[in-house]
Amino acid sequence: MSAGKHLGKGSVHPALPDDGVPRLYSMRFCPFAERAHLALNAKKVPHHTIYVNLTEKPEWLVDVSPLLKVPALHLVGEKAQPSLIESLIIVEYLDEKYPENPLLPKDPLKRAQDKILVERFSAITGAFMKIVIHGGDGADFWPAIDIFEAELGKRGTPYFSGEKPGFVDYMIWPWFERLAVAEFILKESYNFDKKRYAKISAWLDLIVKDEVVQSHYATPEQHLTYWKSRKAGQTNYDLLA
Amino acid sequence: MSAGKHLGKGSVHPALPDDGVPRLYSMRFCPFAERAHLALNAKKVPHHTIYVNLTEKPEWLVDVSPLLKVPALHLVGEKAQPSLIESLIIVEYLDEKYPENPLLPKDPLKRAQDKILVERFSAITGAFMKIVIHGGDGADFWPAIDIFEAELGKRGTPYFSGEKPGFVDYMIWPWFERLAVAEFILKESYNFDKKRYAKISAWLDLIVKDEVVQSHYATPEQHLTYWKSRKAGQTNYDLLA
Repeated sequence: MSAGKHLGKGSVHPALPDDGVPRLYSMRFCPFAERAHLALNAKKVPHHTIYVNLTEKPEWLVDVSPLLKVPALHLVGEKAQPSLIESLIIVEYLDEKYPENPLLPKDPLKRAQDKILVERFSAITGAFMKIVIHGGDGADFWPAIDIFEAELGKRGTPYFSGEKPGFVDYMIWPWFERLAVAEFILKESYNFDKKRYAKISAWLDLIVKDEVVQSHYATPEQHLTYWKSRKAGQTNYDLLA
Repeated sequence: MSAGKHLGKGSVHPALPDDGVPRLYSMRFCPFAERAHLALNAKKVPHHTIYVNLTEKPEWLVDVSPLLKVPALHLVGEKAQPSLIESLIIVEYLDEKYPENPLLPKDPLKRAQDKILVERFSAITGAFMKIVIHGGDGADFWPAIDIFEAELGKRGTPYFSGEKPGFVDYMIWPWFERLAVAEFILKESYNFDKKRYAKISAWLDLIVKDEVVQSHYATPEQHLTYWKSRKAGQTNYDLLA
């Protein structure tokens, strides 16, 4: 279901079997693309993965992702073979299309509350980006995590989605998987306080062992190696290929 | 269903009948809040509207909208009386909760495509904001409309949602309703070319007469008067009260 090296400028659009299964265009270290991988794997949807070099993008990428973004899900089995973009829209589509292992609750109110929570997570993705790309000091990162700590307490379950991971868990996990990068950059000012984030810490200990998470997992060291290569201007997309 | 003046700092949180119907916290000229009004009216959902002064926010706003944003939909009929925020999440909630006059298609693929289109509309809301708030020259505004012109052509229907307005139509309309403000600011460089945007022009002529749109409509002159009052630092929230 998964392919190897990242294809770049000058590459040939790979010929895939004419089997009608969706094709995910992805980048191995993109946290937004990871959301789509986790949803596909959670729901056991057969698919192909094509990894793309985002520094030197292949000329053919525009054919399957008009805005040249990943993740893009190319639905070759559908009439006119449309592509979907935007990680959350892709995940909701998969959840509606494939009933196995539902990610979002059925109740409209609970669905909306889960979507709002993931929307509020953009405070964390934004703060994380500031640290990782712009060398920010993380001042806005820690208070943003408090909201999720409080929410886990309010829900009173090991996962945001209950007794097993679901939409919220998988949509926010990719940034927690990359905490080691923030720790490396922030050094002494890194402050993941296990008392302040007691419930999130317990959640992290659990979710990292989840088989869906493990299906698309990179270690803290691998994320750090990737980040260093990018920082050095020689992004090693194929680190895990 | 709708209330008058915008409540500000020092105001008393209005006592409303204990009827269990949703309460929409809104600002009369906010295009994002308008999305929620249009969805409530399209689906004929009984509700109360409380208008809020966004310059000097009421102290009690935090109780119904923790991030002090509008629109916020306070579901007083639900257990624990939760509030929903984010215009699109509110609208999807209403569409799932109240079956009458569905806004989004039922087919997962078509739903996803409509959501992607509205997501892409953020290029227009962003470009509009640049013109209206920061005095931008609109260079990125016009090409963003091309996407919607092309999409109407592709769909081959008078509205984005078919023979009558639906999700895409109502979610993007509020910015078209405010075109006069862009025209006033851009002056000679305003360039709404009726040939280039032939299909959008026909759509505008139709949708402005729609009864749902008319249920929460302000004229070009009213939008302009509002914008001028805001620009002058004396926002006239109650222009239509």
